[in-house]
Amino acid sequence: MNGLPMVVPEPGLPTAVTIHEVGPRDGLQNESAVVPTEVKAEFIRRLVDAGHRTVEATSFVPAKWVPQLGDAEELFGSLSDLLPDVDLPVLVPNERGLDRALALGARHIAVFASATETFAQRNLNRSLDGALDMFSPVVTRATGDGVRVRGYLSMCFGDPWEGPVDVAQVVDVGVRLVEMGCWQLSLGDTIGVATPGQVTALIDAFGQAGVGVDKLAVHFHDTYGQALANTLAALRHGVTTVDASTGGLGGCPYAKSATGNLATEDLVWMLSGLGIDTGVDLGRLVATSTWLADHLGRPSPSRTVRALAGER
Amino acid sequence: MNGLPMVVPEPGLPTAVTIHEVGPRDGLQNESAVVPTEVKAEFIRRLVDAGHRTVEATSFVPAKWVPQLGDAEELFGSLSDLLPDVDLPVLVPNERGLDRALALGARHIAVFASATETFAQRNLNRSLDGALDMFSPVVTRATGDGVRVRGYLSMCFGDPWEGPVDVAQVVDVGVRLVEMGCWQLSLGDTIGVATPGQVTALIDAFGQAGVGVDKLAVHFHDTYGQALANTLAALRHGVTTVDASTGGLGGCPYAKSATGNLATEDLVWMLSGLGIDTGVDLGRLVATSTWLADHLGRPSPSRTVRALAGER
Repeated sequence: MNGLPMVVPEPGLPTAVTIHEVGPRDGLQNESAVVPTEVKAEFIRRLVDAGHRTVEATSFVPAKWVPQLGDAEELFGSLSDLLPDVDLPVLVPNERGLDRALALGARHIAVFASATETFAQRNLNRSLDGALDMFSPVVTRATGDGVRVRGYLSMCFGDPWEGPVDVAQVVDVGVRLVEMGCWQLSLGDTIGVATPGQVTALIDAFGQAGVGVDKLAVHFHDTYGQALANTLAALRHGVTTVDASTGGLGGCPYAKSATGNLATEDLVWMLSGLGIDTGVDLGRLVATSTWLADHLGRPSPSRTVRALAGER
Repeated sequence: MNGLPMVVPEPGLPTAVTIHEVGPRDGLQNESAVVPTEVKAEFIRRLVDAGHRTVEATSFVPAKWVPQLGDAEELFGSLSDLLPDVDLPVLVPNERGLDRALALGARHIAVFASATETFAQRNLNRSLDGALDMFSPVVTRATGDGVRVRGYLSMCFGDPWEGPVDVAQVVDVGVRLVEMGCWQLSLGDTIGVATPGQVTALIDAFGQAGVGVDKLAVHFHDTYGQALANTLAALRHGVTTVDASTGGLGGCPYAKSATGNLATEDLVWMLSGLGIDTGVDLGRLVATSTWLADHLGRPSPSRTVRALAGER
């Protein structure tokens, strides 16, 4: 098959999709070992060489929160030559983080809210409202500077402590982020339990609340193998931004409440087969995942990577 | 989440799906080790206890072809008490195999054709036409006895030697099987390369050739992680029979031209979430996969099994 699927479009799907690549941030922050800064920089440059134009680079959180990304200044500073052509969003939790990101020329930041009270407490040590209060001045200042702000919403489809999550609750938090000034919401299935009907219902509910699909991205995890089917459901409803992680990086996909992100390669295989343009070269992505797997000392959990790396 | 997804139906999908469980045959025939007959029998009984009503039990091919299933007589004979309530299809390549299956009371057999010339040669050591000639008297005699015949069609979406496969060629072979007397066609993506647009196009083409979705089953492999998305596309077009293998048994999912079947558990997670009735108890399936994995000495490749077995 020459390493690429046959192309047969499916009626009713978008013609192009923006992949929001989260491997360098969401993937590497979940590694037990700290990856050297120069490896992270090469990873990001390889992703850009493969055609990615949106690569979430790092997180300006305190290093004591996430030591894996404690080199945010050094890493992001070394990538400034990419900034004119490539969108390099960075996570920012508070005004101190915003100062650090802006000082290095960041033009796109992300705040990370939770759709559930319990995860807000566990992830941010704050109530859900308290977290939004923390983000509010960040969003106001950033948007005032012309910096785009993405709002992550975790646990949109299920929460390991609270169980099923009410659609109205997710929409309520999402609308508050949009009203605050977020230009895009990334709807996260953090524990990978969603199925396609939930995806449709949430997108519909956001539409009824005045948040159209142009403002929505989807962020699926493959913990139960559902990520690509859920993506297909989201595409069918007009979503055109999909988060994915090259090689499926992002925590051990086999652990309890596993955090395995949708592998970018599995996504690109499907989108390529559907004739949906992503601008990404699958062979280069697979080569990057294979290269990174050597650094991390374990194989990629992406099925496409395993199939194609085995072929080479 | 109590080991089950939240239920949110998706408009336009069927309300019930028949899972054609292939683990005992398609799964175990690809194991390098021969599994003891009593373990196979217990596997099948556990699948029935979990709610399966269609379990492909074994294959009446010559033992020298597939030594893993060389105990077909002994195994199938030991299951006769199940036959009144459970559909236990068996593979039959020729009249000798049919004689053996009928002598033990089989009421449902399957022949296995290829959509491509190369795979017919490699799998059956015959031309595509020669294979159909071999099956023809089998189908005629079986249907004359009131025995149902399923027609497997391999390599419907891509062939490791021939590359992309023309839809017209697949439909041509499929129609010949239906005209021969097959009551159902199982459309196989043997190397797992298909994407949803191909699935839609093939189902549409069969419809135009007079073979409706009531006669079609889909048989996807997860080699590139596409099986569940492809299943969703098939369901949307009205297919209500889906082949799957408990635990994702069926060859090493990580080898070249890998043969990893869609894991029944990943399928049941999606269907349960969509409110589509299968009659199958997911917890019992996972327990069965965990039990079998101990016998086989390696973990299940099913993501749902890994997520749920880790939770227990």
